[in-house]
Amino acid sequence: MTVLLCGDMDAAEYAEWGRHLRAYLPARETLVLATEDFDPAAVEVAFAANPPPGTLARLPRLRFIQSLWAGVDRLLRDPDLPRDIPVARLVNPAMTEAMVESAAAAVLFLHRQYPAYAAQAARGEWHQRVQPLARERRVGVLGLGELGGATARALAGLGFAVRGWSRRPKQVEGVACLHGAAGLGRMLDGTEILVNLLPLTAETAGILGRDTFARLARGGGVVNLARGGHLDEAALWEALDSGQVGHAVLDVFATEPLPPEHPFWRHPAVTVFPHVAAYSHPETAAAIACRNLTRFRAGERPEALLDLGRGY
Amino acid sequence: MTVLLCGDMDAAEYAEWGRHLRAYLPARETLVLATEDFDPAAVEVAFAANPPPGTLARLPRLRFIQSLWAGVDRLLRDPDLPRDIPVARLVNPAMTEAMVESAAAAVLFLHRQYPAYAAQAARGEWHQRVQPLARERRVGVLGLGELGGATARALAGLGFAVRGWSRRPKQVEGVACLHGAAGLGRMLDGTEILVNLLPLTAETAGILGRDTFARLARGGGVVNLARGGHLDEAALWEALDSGQVGHAVLDVFATEPLPPEHPFWRHPAVTVFPHVAAYSHPETAAAIACRNLTRFRAGERPEALLDLGRGY
Repeated sequence: MTVLLCGDMDAAEYAEWGRHLRAYLPARETLVLATEDFDPAAVEVAFAANPPPGTLARLPRLRFIQSLWAGVDRLLRDPDLPRDIPVARLVNPAMTEAMVESAAAAVLFLHRQYPAYAAQAARGEWHQRVQPLARERRVGVLGLGELGGATARALAGLGFAVRGWSRRPKQVEGVACLHGAAGLGRMLDGTEILVNLLPLTAETAGILGRDTFARLARGGGVVNLARGGHLDEAALWEALDSGQVGHAVLDVFATEPLPPEHPFWRHPAVTVFPHVAAYSHPETAAAIACRNLTRFRAGERPEALLDLGRGY
Repeated sequence: MTVLLCGDMDAAEYAEWGRHLRAYLPARETLVLATEDFDPAAVEVAFAANPPPGTLARLPRLRFIQSLWAGVDRLLRDPDLPRDIPVARLVNPAMTEAMVESAAAAVLFLHRQYPAYAAQAARGEWHQRVQPLARERRVGVLGLGELGGATARALAGLGFAVRGWSRRPKQVEGVACLHGAAGLGRMLDGTEILVNLLPLTAETAGILGRDTFARLARGGGVVNLARGGHLDEAALWEALDSGQVGHAVLDVFATEPLPPEHPFWRHPAVTVFPHVAAYSHPETAAAIACRNLTRFRAGERPEALLDLGRGY
């Protein structure tokens, strides 16, 4: 029973993932790394961490793909991805915790006006700014899946007035949930801090663009923790210039690593993180991937199977 | 029935507090401002926002002092404060909310390594740092009163591993509570982020000093939201230099406003706020002060009466 670990990883990452996966792998399975010699016809299951396009099409007896990442947009962009094989996302509670912590940190950073006070500190200026309470602060969360739902719930728990939006109707405790095209505008109108946790699909690409920014409260904050493809960089630049957006916290970018000369790095109204909001946690991820493999082998339905039509 | 509003305020602040207090004052009471002409012998109650020393001693018929601030250390430093008159602190839920939000913002700012990523951004450096989860992060809260208790509870709700310390035994849900001189050291040992919300008394002055910093995890964070007198500035400077403390978030200072030339303003490992963590909220504070006045007039025990021996 051969399982292939394949991905966009360097040797150290292959070694780390391999070590954690072998610790949880059922004894009857054999893990091979894509960097080793192996028989493609022996591989029935792939643990896929965004492998190069075409990798999975070369496995004639492949029956199940377990992504090692929650986001599968890169995996699905492989034009040769076999469309008749089940693909499971990785739903990792540790990753959800990290994302919730990152989102709460960014929202509180904007809520408590850290960027404005940092600018004052550079001038040695003691000036107390008007400060609403969290319950007076309108926060919007785009996406109410695993990550967005947990984030919206946590922000409501901190007292924020949270509205959430998803494509289809959802319910999240303490959150005003809107959905569909009509709900999107109503969710955005007057939002002071907008957090994006949508999956990247053809429909959501560029959603952080001019029309969205125009509906926010003037000087509002934008937090992108999902994918660089959600953000129209030129529209953000313009909205920062005009003051329509006051500050952006960005963890993901169209090009990663963000090139050293990219102007976002040093823009005073942009806080840049190097895609660390919910970096995959190999130890817990390995346990979850191996548990899902066991479900598959037992003939049960694996958890978090993709709907390839929707793209997430 | 004359009530005097007195404090360390400018004309605009007198006007704002006066407006809010008059909106909640029982009809049979008359509010006079210390900036107006008034008969000292007519004043039975003082609403005190840190008035100049001696102010309250000049009111021969004074029977009740309601502070408009939660912190009464400045009020109690008045050597002529009449010691036989009951003094109530202001316990304002809106102020507690603001303090909890400020503390959560500062702890998440340090937890998610904002200062280190800001330094990387200045260099255009894409580097993913090791990041523990909140449940792996040891946070300590000094003080488990109104503000500290609510803060410790909220941080535990965010998932942090929280220990709290108070002079006398307390219980806070989800928080490991320690107390007394022996408990202090155990609370500090290995703490990665320390939040101070103690009242300022002779016993707690300078508690953020060399001995305390030495017990924290190396490179730990320090958040002072209480009083400048809690912090030994020279000891902090030394601990930042040696790397024992990695970053400090300071909202309060020995001298306020912090002088423009003070080196904390521009120290890369110090984030300065101008005493805004829980700035008093006149509208809600006025309602609470007037409600306590009514309790006093009705012969009931006012809420949040001070124990002058303890100093809080």
